[in-house]
Amino acid sequence: MEPLVRPVSFSRWELMILDQTLIPFEERYLRITELDDAIEAIKQLKVRGAPAIGIAAAYSFVLGIKNEMDRGTEENILKIAQSVKRKIENSRPTAVNLFNALNRMFDRTKQLIEERKNSDQILDELVNEANMILEEDLNASRGMISNFLKLFEGVKKPLSFLTHCNTGALATGGLGTALGAIRAMYEIDKVEKVFATETRPLLQGARLTAWELEKYGIPYNLIVDSAAPYLISKGMVDAVVVGADRVARNGDTANKIGTLSLALAAKEYDIPFIVVCPSTSLDLNIEDGSQINIEYRSSQEVGYFKGERITVDPYKCLNPAFDVTPHQFITAIVFETEIKLFREMSW
Amino acid sequence: MEPLVRPVSFSRWELMILDQTLIPFEERYLRITELDDAIEAIKQLKVRGAPAIGIAAAYSFVLGIKNEMDRGTEENILKIAQSVKRKIENSRPTAVNLFNALNRMFDRTKQLIEERKNSDQILDELVNEANMILEEDLNASRGMISNFLKLFEGVKKPLSFLTHCNTGALATGGLGTALGAIRAMYEIDKVEKVFATETRPLLQGARLTAWELEKYGIPYNLIVDSAAPYLISKGMVDAVVVGADRVARNGDTANKIGTLSLALAAKEYDIPFIVVCPSTSLDLNIEDGSQINIEYRSSQEVGYFKGERITVDPYKCLNPAFDVTPHQFITAIVFETEIKLFREMSW
Repeated sequence: MEPLVRPVSFSRWELMILDQTLIPFEERYLRITELDDAIEAIKQLKVRGAPAIGIAAAYSFVLGIKNEMDRGTEENILKIAQSVKRKIENSRPTAVNLFNALNRMFDRTKQLIEERKNSDQILDELVNEANMILEEDLNASRGMISNFLKLFEGVKKPLSFLTHCNTGALATGGLGTALGAIRAMYEIDKVEKVFATETRPLLQGARLTAWELEKYGIPYNLIVDSAAPYLISKGMVDAVVVGADRVARNGDTANKIGTLSLALAAKEYDIPFIVVCPSTSLDLNIEDGSQINIEYRSSQEVGYFKGERITVDPYKCLNPAFDVTPHQFITAIVFETEIKLFREMSW
Repeated sequence: MEPLVRPVSFSRWELMILDQTLIPFEERYLRITELDDAIEAIKQLKVRGAPAIGIAAAYSFVLGIKNEMDRGTEENILKIAQSVKRKIENSRPTAVNLFNALNRMFDRTKQLIEERKNSDQILDELVNEANMILEEDLNASRGMISNFLKLFEGVKKPLSFLTHCNTGALATGGLGTALGAIRAMYEIDKVEKVFATETRPLLQGARLTAWELEKYGIPYNLIVDSAAPYLISKGMVDAVVVGADRVARNGDTANKIGTLSLALAAKEYDIPFIVVCPSTSLDLNIEDGSQINIEYRSSQEVGYFKGERITVDPYKCLNPAFDVTPHQFITAIVFETEIKLFREMSW
């Protein structure tokens, strides 16, 4: 399966970013040659999704160093790399993938300097390193997808899946996690329909997932988040498939707010609840879900819609951005490296 | 407890309707003297909520007859009443309370004609009848509230309630059902906080419930619908309290989409799930929830926000307006006539 959408790509010396703030109304690619424009794109959420941000950061790093070299800066490459790294780090202070990618790029730079490579060689190798970060993401997706297909091997008839938020191409290098797995199932004629939740407050489902499903030609319905348990209770959904932001050692999983609600319904009406995520989301330092710190985001995200107030006092909105699903409610977690099966699946 | 808001009131010969399409941004009362304006207000959802619509219809009926009489129409009162009834019936074709109120007003008119009352007497008596419909609604609320307080009699410390949609003054004659009961608890210092769901797609929680809570001075937080199970899982909610559109003989309850999700979370985390509704919502002809017909409303309600498209293809939205909560997940249904207790409550 090949990507149909490339949220981030690079060819010397241009970083192409699909402007996700315009989706679903316009598919416009930014062609970025200056570091400051790349940082601006990350800041303004034109690229979003943890893996996609990491990839964009890696390419921005190379671009920043190239910019300085072109300007004939006197400083040595290590100093340039440090300053470029710091600039990018300030764009999205809580994005772990961004830090990981930058640390990796910086370490590689130091190594190349130690190996006494010349400027051109260093730039070459750094482009390779960023390409590898993208390739590794695509390979992780391929692994997750292949494991997901294995999990559903016994299924003969097409299934209806319900998914939450956006876990597709747009969030990653181009293949996605949970939504990528659903797309792969569709390509082998095992998907009847997808129910996509709109995903309040930021509507990633309505804006991004629906757009991807449209692009893949997969039949779908968009629903308000709170309608999911009803459809599940009516037997309209065969399995819930979601991504994960973090997985604790015991399998408890933090994901976009609303995920727990889907897990509770899946449990009550006895359908599989599957998490698809890269092994990098597994945090072995975290024993269980109670130790996962849940980010509360700005009340304005709930109380305003496109700059317009929707309630009497937007400051009284409470906005937990994630929730934790206990592993007892999870049927399986599909990593690229392994399938962690909590309950037997039967069809 | 007295109403702080009167969504519908009447003094000869003026019907006052609080324009709910302007809430929460403006509290403007329409002063209506012509039947056509009354019908327009009902059509445009300036008055909403089943009981409030019934009350508005009853007063509109009197107003329509008075208008015709003032114009010195040749026709007899029965013919006028028939034509007025038909006009109002066409305003909201699926509102049961509207039909019930109109049938009652029309039957009373026939009776008065048979009793050979003169025009002034008939108008007097019809105003009394409409006042009675309003009074009966307020009394039903008082009964529900008193039963609700009984149910929570043993509670010593203030509680945090979670509620859904709008079940307050704005939906009724002025006292409400579930939200009225919460307000009564607050007045005897038994409410710590209310969590109100925004209630997608039409945002009755964000627009109306938050406005009422503000008016009553009750501490509250507005949340996206899908955040409710998370707050419940964290022990932040002591009880879920909702209204009902229809209750089957066995206690299965149809209510605004999203209610089932709250019931599943309340069951899993073992907090009471209480339904507060008038005994007129109990339909003894319906054996259980599977026989309740669920209305699917326009996909546009999900796919558009204030006239602006929020997804790639709004026609692919699926919009079930209600869901059914099985009685197994319900702790108690509080009618004005009785408390139907399914599980013991303990504190």
